[in-house]
Amino acid sequence: MNEPETEPFDTHDTHDADDTPDAHDGGLLPERERVLWAALGRIVEPGDERAGELIDEWGPEEALARLTRALPAGVAAPDGAREIAHGALIGARLICRGEAGWPTQLDDLGSVRPVALWVRGRASLRVLAVRSVAVVGARACTGYGQRLAADLSVSLTERGWTVCSGAAYGIDAAAHRGALVVGGPTVGVLACGVDQVYPRANEQLLRRIAEQGLLLSELPLGAHPNRPRFLQRNRIIAALTRGTVVIEAARRSGSLNTARWAGDLCRQVMATPGPATSSLSAGTHELIRRGAVLVADAGEVVEQVGGIGTDLAATPEGRERLRDALAPETLRVLESLPASTRGGSVESLVQRCLLGPDVVLRRLYELLSLGLVERLGAHWRLNPACKGTS
Amino acid sequence: MNEPETEPFDTHDTHDADDTPDAHDGGLLPERERVLWAALGRIVEPGDERAGELIDEWGPEEALARLTRALPAGVAAPDGAREIAHGALIGARLICRGEAGWPTQLDDLGSVRPVALWVRGRASLRVLAVRSVAVVGARACTGYGQRLAADLSVSLTERGWTVCSGAAYGIDAAAHRGALVVGGPTVGVLACGVDQVYPRANEQLLRRIAEQGLLLSELPLGAHPNRPRFLQRNRIIAALTRGTVVIEAARRSGSLNTARWAGDLCRQVMATPGPATSSLSAGTHELIRRGAVLVADAGEVVEQVGGIGTDLAATPEGRERLRDALAPETLRVLESLPASTRGGSVESLVQRCLLGPDVVLRRLYELLSLGLVERLGAHWRLNPACKGTS
Repeated sequence: MNEPETEPFDTHDTHDADDTPDAHDGGLLPERERVLWAALGRIVEPGDERAGELIDEWGPEEALARLTRALPAGVAAPDGAREIAHGALIGARLICRGEAGWPTQLDDLGSVRPVALWVRGRASLRVLAVRSVAVVGARACTGYGQRLAADLSVSLTERGWTVCSGAAYGIDAAAHRGALVVGGPTVGVLACGVDQVYPRANEQLLRRIAEQGLLLSELPLGAHPNRPRFLQRNRIIAALTRGTVVIEAARRSGSLNTARWAGDLCRQVMATPGPATSSLSAGTHELIRRGAVLVADAGEVVEQVGGIGTDLAATPEGRERLRDALAPETLRVLESLPASTRGGSVESLVQRCLLGPDVVLRRLYELLSLGLVERLGAHWRLNPACKGTS
Repeated sequence: MNEPETEPFDTHDTHDADDTPDAHDGGLLPERERVLWAALGRIVEPGDERAGELIDEWGPEEALARLTRALPAGVAAPDGAREIAHGALIGARLICRGEAGWPTQLDDLGSVRPVALWVRGRASLRVLAVRSVAVVGARACTGYGQRLAADLSVSLTERGWTVCSGAAYGIDAAAHRGALVVGGPTVGVLACGVDQVYPRANEQLLRRIAEQGLLLSELPLGAHPNRPRFLQRNRIIAALTRGTVVIEAARRSGSLNTARWAGDLCRQVMATPGPATSSLSAGTHELIRRGAVLVADAGEVVEQVGGIGTDLAATPEGRERLRDALAPETLRVLESLPASTRGGSVESLVQRCLLGPDVVLRRLYELLSLGLVERLGAHWRLNPACKGTS
C-alpha cells in the first residue's frame, strides 16, 4: 500500500516471443520496422491527428524522423529497439499496424487510429476482438449497476463474447470480473502503459486480466494516465468492439464519450435502464432517448451485435478459412475435442493435448468466440453446425 | 366490508341538470335524441364495430330499432328515458355524440367510438381532456412504480395537465392520488357503470375522483366489469388523451394494450424505465425498444405532449375563443382574479365569487389547463401572456 501510485507489474510472467499468438498467427513485421513503430508510439500522443496524417503521408520512417526533429531541445530521440526489449523483459509485446495480430477494426479510426498497441497477456487480441462487446459505465456506480454489469458480462462470456472495458473502478471492474469468474477472457484497455498499476486498488484485477485475457494500451510502457488519455482510450474501446453497452452513467459521464465514439464509428450503441429517479441512470436514459438501444440482458445485447462474424462458422468455406487462421495451439485443442455430443472436460483435454489447463481454457474461449465449439456447463464440445470440418 | 362487490354509490351528490358543465357549455341534444343514445348505450357492447357501423349508416333511431329487433326473445327493449332519469337520481349524466360536452378526440376511434358516455362529477370533460395525459400501469406494481406514478401525476397536475387513468389498483390508483393530493382534477375511466364500486377497495378513491374530477364510462349504469370491457376501456383512455405513459408493466400487461391503442391513434406513447432486472419493467422496456419515448419525469412527458392546445391562449383571437367557451361559473372565477402579479388565494377568490372552495379550485384547474391562469404555490394569478383579455 506504500508503493508509488503507478508501480510496474513484476516480471515473473515473461515469455518467449515465439510463444505469442502474434508469432503463431503468422507474421510480425521485420524487426527494423517494428522498432520504428515502437518509437512512434513513444512520441505520438493518443489521438494526435496531425501526427497520424504525417505517418499516413510519409510512412513510419520519414514521419518518425520529422517528429523527432520537432522534439523540444534536450528531449532524447525515442529508441524503439530499447522499448521492445524492455517490453519483452516485463511480458509486454508490441502489435504494429500491418501485422497479423493487428485488429483491423481500429483502422476505422482513420488518422486517429493508434500508432501501435502494447499488450500483456497471451491470448490473441485479433481473435478476441472478433466477437467483442464493450461494457462500460460509472466509476461511482450503485450496487444495482455493479450486479447488472457482472451478470451481463457472465452471460456474454458464456455465449462466446469477449467483454472489453476500461479496467476502472465501478462498472468497468464489475464487467471484467464477470468474465473472469466464469473462466473467460476479457480485454482491459488502459489509459496508461500496460506495465502500470492504475487504479492502484485494481492491482489484482489487472493481473488477472493479463493472465486470463489481455491488457491493452496504445501508450508506451511507463506512461501515466491523464484526462485526455482517458478520453482517447475510449475511442479504442469503441472501435475494437461491435458495440458499446453503457451501464449507469451520470449526465456528463466519460462513458457517454465512449458511446459517442461507438455511434460515430457505426458500432451499436446500447444502454441499460435504471430507476427513473436515479441520477446514475440519467445518462443512460438520455442515450436511449437519443437512439441508443435499451438492453436489459445479454440476449438483447447479442441480438444487436450478433450476426456477421457469427455466421463465418456456418458455411464449410467459412470454417476452412477459420481453421487456416488458427494458431497451432488452438488447432491442437480443437482437434483434441471428442466427437461425442457430450464433449469433454477441460481436464480431459489437458491430458489429450499436453497443454496447461489455463492454455486449454484460453484456446477454448477463442474457439467459442469463433463459433467452432460450444460450452455445456463444465464440458466443451464441437459446435454441431461445424462438425463437417473438425 | 360485507357489501356486495359492486355496490352503487349513495346518492347524496345529486344535482340539478342545469348545473352541469354540459348545460353551461352550450348545448345538449333534444331530449328525444338523448333518449335514443342512452338506449343505444344500454344495448351496444363497447367496441362493437358492427353496431357502430349500423349507427353511422342509419342514424341512432333506425339503428336502435334494428338492434332492438335483433335482441334475443325475452330481453326487454332498452328504455333510454328511464336510464337518464335514473342517472339524474344518482348524480350521473349522459354525454351524447354531437353535444357540446362530447370530447371530439374520441371520434378518432371511428366506428368503435363509444356510443355515449356516462360521467359522474361536475368538471367539464371536454375542458379536462384538452390537456390530458394517461398514466397507466401494473396493478401489482412495486413501491418504486407507485412513487413514480404519484410524483409524475403531482407534477403533471401542477403544470395544468389532467391525469387520466383506469382507477385500478397499483399504478392507476397512485396516478389518481397524485392529482388529488395537490387539489387537481383527474379522470377515471371505468370498465363498469359509473355508479359501480370496482375495485371495492378503491371506494374512497372513486368517490374523491368524482368529487374533484370525473368518473367516466361508456357502459350503462349498473354494468359490471369483465375482461373484454377492461380492454375496450383502454381505447377510451388512449383516445381521450394526448399521450399515454406506461409506468411498470409485465410483458403481457393490460397497460401495453392501452399503449398500443395510443400508438394506433397517433397519440404519444411513453414509458418509464426501471431496473433491468425487474419483471415489472420488462413491459415498459419492450415498449421503449419498439419506439415508445423513454420519460423519467413530468418535464419529459410535457415535452412530448405539449404544443397544440397550449398555444391557444397565446393569441388574442385564441383567448377570445377560449373565453367564449367557458362555463359562466368558470368565467366568474377568471374575472375575480386580481390584476396583481401576486394573484390571489383560493380563500380570497371564494369571497369574491361567492362560490364554494371546491368549485373555485375545480374552475381554477380548468383555467390552468387552458393556459389562462398560473399557479404560484397557494396563489393563483392570471397568466401574464393572457392579460390582454381578462
